[in-house]
Amino acid sequence: MKLNIAVLPGDGIGPEVTAQAVKVLKAIAMDFNHIFTFNHGLVGAGAIDKTGNPLPQETIDICKKADAVLFGAIGRTSFDLKPNAKIRPEQGLLGIRKELGLHTNIRPVIAYEDLLSKSSLKVKQIKDVDILIYRELTGGIYFGDRTLSEDGNTATDTCTYNRYEIERIAHAAFKAAQARKKKITLVDKANVLESSRLWRRIVQEIAPQYPDVKLKYMYIDNAAMELIINPRQFDVILTENMFGDILSEEASVIVGSIGLLASASLGDKYAMFEPIHGAYTKAANKGIANPIASILSAAMLLDHFGLDEEANRVREGVDKSLKLHITTPDLNNKYDNISTTKVGDFIEDFINNPDETNLN
Amino acid sequence: MKLNIAVLPGDGIGPEVTAQAVKVLKAIAMDFNHIFTFNHGLVGAGAIDKTGNPLPQETIDICKKADAVLFGAIGRTSFDLKPNAKIRPEQGLLGIRKELGLHTNIRPVIAYEDLLSKSSLKVKQIKDVDILIYRELTGGIYFGDRTLSEDGNTATDTCTYNRYEIERIAHAAFKAAQARKKKITLVDKANVLESSRLWRRIVQEIAPQYPDVKLKYMYIDNAAMELIINPRQFDVILTENMFGDILSEEASVIVGSIGLLASASLGDKYAMFEPIHGAYTKAANKGIANPIASILSAAMLLDHFGLDEEANRVREGVDKSLKLHITTPDLNNKYDNISTTKVGDFIEDFINNPDETNLN
Ligand SMILES: CC(C)[C@H](C(=O)O)[C@@H](O)C(=O)O
Ligand SMILES: CC(C)[C@H](C(=O)O)[C@@H](O)C(=O)O
Repeated sequence: MKLNIAVLPGDGIGPEVTAQAVKVLKAIAMDFNHIFTFNHGLVGAGAIDKTGNPLPQETIDICKKADAVLFGAIGRTSFDLKPNAKIRPEQGLLGIRKELGLHTNIRPVIAYEDLLSKSSLKVKQIKDVDILIYRELTGGIYFGDRTLSEDGNTATDTCTYNRYEIERIAHAAFKAAQARKKKITLVDKANVLESSRLWRRIVQEIAPQYPDVKLKYMYIDNAAMELIINPRQFDVILTENMFGDILSEEASVIVGSIGLLASASLGDKYAMFEPIHGAYTKAANKGIANPIASILSAAMLLDHFGLDEEANRVREGVDKSLKLHITTPDLNNKYDNISTTKVGDFIEDFINNPDETNLN
Repeated sequence: MKLNIAVLPGDGIGPEVTAQAVKVLKAIAMDFNHIFTFNHGLVGAGAIDKTGNPLPQETIDICKKADAVLFGAIGRTSFDLKPNAKIRPEQGLLGIRKELGLHTNIRPVIAYEDLLSKSSLKVKQIKDVDILIYRELTGGIYFGDRTLSEDGNTATDTCTYNRYEIERIAHAAFKAAQARKKKITLVDKANVLESSRLWRRIVQEIAPQYPDVKLKYMYIDNAAMELIINPRQFDVILTENMFGDILSEEASVIVGSIGLLASASLGDKYAMFEPIHGAYTKAANKGIANPIASILSAAMLLDHFGLDEEANRVREGVDKSLKLHITTPDLNNKYDNISTTKVGDFIEDFINNPDETNLN
């Protein structure tokens, strides 16, 4: 298969981890006789530095010509302290989601057997957890109108949802549930928000088309608690943009490190793959960033093109690295100094020689 | 001291738990020679049943004539399944918050030594956690405009914040931090929301007035994770309405049961005290509801009037009940069948005879 992959490494630890994912994809291409080409684009704070724009037109063009986008991370601490800045790195990420119409963000949360003890939660809490979060990604308060009054004393954000935005991701989530444990939990705040009531109404309407799927409703405040006290109750979680942001980052505590959570962002025409972690500026360039979320995002990219064997090879490599504790410091590995690159190298080696790779 | 207390038991487990808090307040009044009078009002689903209105004018009047309000819980499952219902129990709670101008909601999150093992989190994670959440309660998306298009296919909610709304709670939170560990964490989503940027800007402006307090910023998604992986980093958390709702319910996992979390909602003229848990309809009238959140809310009421010794007596009673496992089933007590009423009776006995009460 020929795949043209746009690579947007972005800021902070983005470039380091993305480099490992690219390395892994190259190894897959070699071993399975695919032709993957990679075109890099600027995004985020780095793009602002070089072009004044967090999402240069050239980057959009690179992405639109590509079959898929591999995204790193964006953000920089200096902007976090400047709430007045009009141009912000995050506009690069939000912009690309909007430009490519990436409305459906899928975030798997899987408790790895070998990492159960790394979680802040008790092992018995998290054993066998396997959740798929469907987060709506191009609507809601993320893309509503924003206003700041002239005197700077009143700020407004609007959260709007339309029927079609809810329907398309709801159908995708129901279908995913059908292929899994057949349970879907809609998370909203329908006791307060009109937009949440629209979600609840539409999902209620759609549900009969999937009679084998059990639908449950949960308020976001309650879900934030239930995700910790009883995560095994969840199969597919369906939710709007902001609640999905919060719940998916919270869910990383189950897995043991946010450095492990991958995601796919799908639109009607385009697809992007990115770790759910951010730029984590203070860890940049130290070789301590966990590349696994990025590598697993590459595996989701392979899934997307039906390259199941290839995706599984990557996942086996990740599993093996975890089993052998070839992991970065966020997972408190027993061995010293296993760097971002070394983890990538190990998984690359595994892909090349799945039967031989061991501690080397 | 003479106190006129409005009691709004509400729905579900609200009446049962509130009855225990009233019992405790009566015992305090007796022992410390105060005169507490109690006037009951209807609110929530029960009020809809009886009057068609989740917040009858009579209830508002009772509250406005009172020195303080003791609130139970509102909500009913049948409404959760009816996203079209125009009249909803939650309007009772949101309405009373607005009517009384209860802008500052304070939710303490304390890891009780005797309950560490009940938490879903590892004991070492939560030992010594002592967080005070300042949640803004009468602004933001909870009280913004809501619209549903005529065809019912587009819904909008608006989130607005004004300078004065942010300033008043920010000052309260900074002052609270000064009397504690002198750390404050502002939780927002300033990388996306204009209203969050306003929060960040104003809190940044105010901070120099409290030079002894260390201010930190955190995005809500990150905070939802950090609250679990490193809760001890927090002292005072300051946040807007929706984020405070989510974070405070999530924080209950630290304490071991949401049945333990109390809150105070303060305005310029009025004050209300309520457990953070909801109506929990399916547990109603079974004697299994934990009354401690309500009883601790009563303790916060006593605090509010400077009745320190009285509040401490209540808290000692609660501590003792936890130490002796006189607890409802949510805390998996060793003894069978310790009912809501029995827990209340135990704490009442303790208040009357603090030196003698033991298992009885
Ligand atoms: C960086 C930020 C704008 C982004 C979001 O909130 O969507 C991130 O947290 C994520 O989850 O991808
Ligand atoms: C019942 C609901 C409207 C309420 C809220 O969201 O504020 C509750 O969750 C709370 O936290 O007091």
